Amino acid sequence: MWVYIKNLKDYIGKEVELRGWVWRSRSSGKIAFINMRDGTGIVQVVVEASSVDEETFKNARKLRMESSLIVRGTVKSEERAPGGVEIHAKEVIPVQIPTEDFPINKPDHSIDYLMEHRHLWLRSRRQMHILNIRDAVLRAIRKFYWENDFVQVDTPIFTGAIGESAGNLFEIDYFDYGKVYLAQTGQLYLEAACMALGRVFNLGPTFRAEKSKTRRHLIEFWMNEAEVAYFEHEDNLKLQENLVSYIVKYVLENAREHLEALNRDISKLEKIEPPFPRITYTEAVKMLQKKGYDIEWGDDFGGDEETEIAKQFDKPVFVTHYPRKAKAFYMQPDPDNPDVVLCDDLIAPEGYGEIIGASQRIHDYDLLVERLKEFNLPVESYDWYLDLRKFGSVPHSGFGLGVERTIAWIAGLEHIREAIPFPRTLYRVHP
Amino acid sequence: MWVYIKNLKDYIGKEVELRGWVWRSRSSGKIAFINMRDGTGIVQVVVEASSVDEETFKNARKLRMESSLIVRGTVKSEERAPGGVEIHAKEVIPVQIPTEDFPINKPDHSIDYLMEHRHLWLRSRRQMHILNIRDAVLRAIRKFYWENDFVQVDTPIFTGAIGESAGNLFEIDYFDYGKVYLAQTGQLYLEAACMALGRVFNLGPTFRAEKSKTRRHLIEFWMNEAEVAYFEHEDNLKLQENLVSYIVKYVLENAREHLEALNRDISKLEKIEPPFPRITYTEAVKMLQKKGYDIEWGDDFGGDEETEIAKQFDKPVFVTHYPRKAKAFYMQPDPDNPDVVLCDDLIAPEGYGEIIGASQRIHDYDLLVERLKEFNLPVESYDWYLDLRKFGSVPHSGFGLGVERTIAWIAGLEHIREAIPFPRTLYRVHP
Repeated sequence: MWVYIKNLKDYIGKEVELRGWVWRSRSSGKIAFINMRDGTGIVQVVVEASSVDEETFKNARKLRMESSLIVRGTVKSEERAPGGVEIHAKEVIPVQIPTEDFPINKPDHSIDYLMEHRHLWLRSRRQMHILNIRDAVLRAIRKFYWENDFVQVDTPIFTGAIGESAGNLFEIDYFDYGKVYLAQTGQLYLEAACMALGRVFNLGPTFRAEKSKTRRHLIEFWMNEAEVAYFEHEDNLKLQENLVSYIVKYVLENAREHLEALNRDISKLEKIEPPFPRITYTEAVKMLQKKGYDIEWGDDFGGDEETEIAKQFDKPVFVTHYPRKAKAFYMQPDPDNPDVVLCDDLIAPEGYGEIIGASQRIHDYDLLVERLKEFNLPVESYDWYLDLRKFGSVPHSGFGLGVERTIAWIAGLEHIREAIPFPRTLYRVHP
Repeated sequence: MWVYIKNLKDYIGKEVELRGWVWRSRSSGKIAFINMRDGTGIVQVVVEASSVDEETFKNARKLRMESSLIVRGTVKSEERAPGGVEIHAKEVIPVQIPTEDFPINKPDHSIDYLMEHRHLWLRSRRQMHILNIRDAVLRAIRKFYWENDFVQVDTPIFTGAIGESAGNLFEIDYFDYGKVYLAQTGQLYLEAACMALGRVFNLGPTFRAEKSKTRRHLIEFWMNEAEVAYFEHEDNLKLQENLVSYIVKYVLENAREHLEALNRDISKLEKIEPPFPRITYTEAVKMLQKKGYDIEWGDDFGGDEETEIAKQFDKPVFVTHYPRKAKAFYMQPDPDNPDVVLCDDLIAPEGYGEIIGASQRIHDYDLLVERLKEFNLPVESYDWYLDLRKFGSVPHSGFGLGVERTIAWIAGLEHIREAIPFPRTLYRVHP
């Protein structure tokens, strides 16, 4: 019976069939050891010349790294082994033995080389752990929304409207229609949907034609956005801190072994629970100026400034009330000070940067038209978006969470490119 | 306390606050009735002149369709009402009252008009039910894979490799790199990932620049693909019938009221359980020829032929073993007859057409190179895909499920465009 390695502990004393690949192998005259992987775990297979036929023992010695193979044998309890078991083989059937060395076989390949071999690099232990953490983060996001009565509304990629700003858009020829853009955000569509369904979210790929090559940027990345009718700034902050805390807790509970395998400092993640600290943009600027940063009220923060702000706290920190002119056109002004808007950026600890951008949205028709003009955006392209302010407009708020930045922070990755299976960066779309 | 309408039955006798929109309203001299919606349900609000202040009663009478409003009042049990409750209002606070009639207010708007107003059409009851069924289908897909130990691997949209065929691709300028394509499928990437993780799936948007305007086609649609290392044709069929049966059962259990509201014939869905019937392509051609269809062995099926095949069964039917030349280059030949391949299309009942395309993939390096040449595809673009056959190649199989077609079938929709929040068709990318 075919069994996955992660389930072997339920089969102690039984005969099983494993299907997988050679992780590492070694042999001496009378015994061969195959560390076998199958995508769910690694187990040691012991092949003794005295207990298998000659053919099987010959096969076992012939295997090399990443050979594919089927093993039939008995599961034995072995306390010293990582999963608590090992396999005593009766049959070893090679499926395919590579004629060349597996390309990912040294500890010091360059990052360019690894990226060029991403299709094979994924088989490495570290990447397997990261992909499992990614999977857990994605599960957590969905479960959070399911438990909180949100409806998934998938927003379109092809869009005529400009979400955030006219720069950084990929254009495409759409039949006779002419140019359309790849969505930078699904927010505008979620705003329409939350008026129909109350609480909505999306989760999917997003595109920014940004010429950035920092460790925090991808050209194609996954974003989770949420939008809630009748939510104001304060509700929005609470939703965000609950979501982020839920994700961290879920990963700690369901993918802890993968965090441990990456040597992530788990004690830092265990501190992540609501409420999160908050500072206003204005307070942050003053703090940065005191520390000698060359920044003035009105400037946006760069990576260094974000890291400096994050350093003050051991939880993610909300920076709120940015200057109106530094943020997108749709943000609701603060009634107490219309030069700033009811928005927040959530900055992750440990230098991982902004993981959420959020705001209450303008719900007044006239004010929104005024802002579109102030930002030199073509009012006519926003006809349907303006309709939402004509027919039963309500205060509403939402945010977008960068999935790969969240994964990079939780997994403790140096560079965001490891947080997605096939990263697209400025110079890479292959494989 | 703010409560959603769907939860009102837990608050009988209590005071609550509702936030939503006017669905319908009517009033006489001393009493006003507001059917109020909030995205989670509809409830009747009774406003009696004698029990509210003059201002509130005046407000209540002023409200029109899709006005936004906040209501405070007491929840009363009312057996004749749809949710079993109604609200006796104490306060009615208009949030915004439209100055124009709500555009979606007649039973006979043209489909073009409705599509042009999709952002408002979403608020209609029918669309709300469909979006909830969509949400349930998406949950079901994920839960199925979670329960079956699959890892989510998000495949890239920007791709240099051609998935299925060179036609029907959207091109994009990627910085200095040159042209890249929008993915038609993530299969090739999932094949790489299943060699790393065993069982993998994706779920996301897909793009086909097809000039089709049938009721079964979208330009941008969602697809769920799965790929399993060491799975052969037979395992693949079982996985598909289990997935599809799981989805239908989940929707019946978790979104039944939405199906009922659409007058879906639920008895037809209750029959959907494994095993599904199977016929070979060759048998299907013979059957169609007998019925007078002008089709020859080697031709692909069109919509009419699919519908005819589906009519013979009350479950989805697998059509297997298509001619090699009618299918994609990567499909494994049948060892018993190399003119056909180990593939299947799963055709939904009731004329909803193909919902899954599937196959065992070629795992032999030389055969795959031969096929690439036979299909005139540039072998050098598939370098990394060929690597998978050089380093521990194993038999593997997978499939792609069209999410909107599956939703259209389960919800009983005439046209696929209602199965996605913001459909992109040949002539429509707005709103």
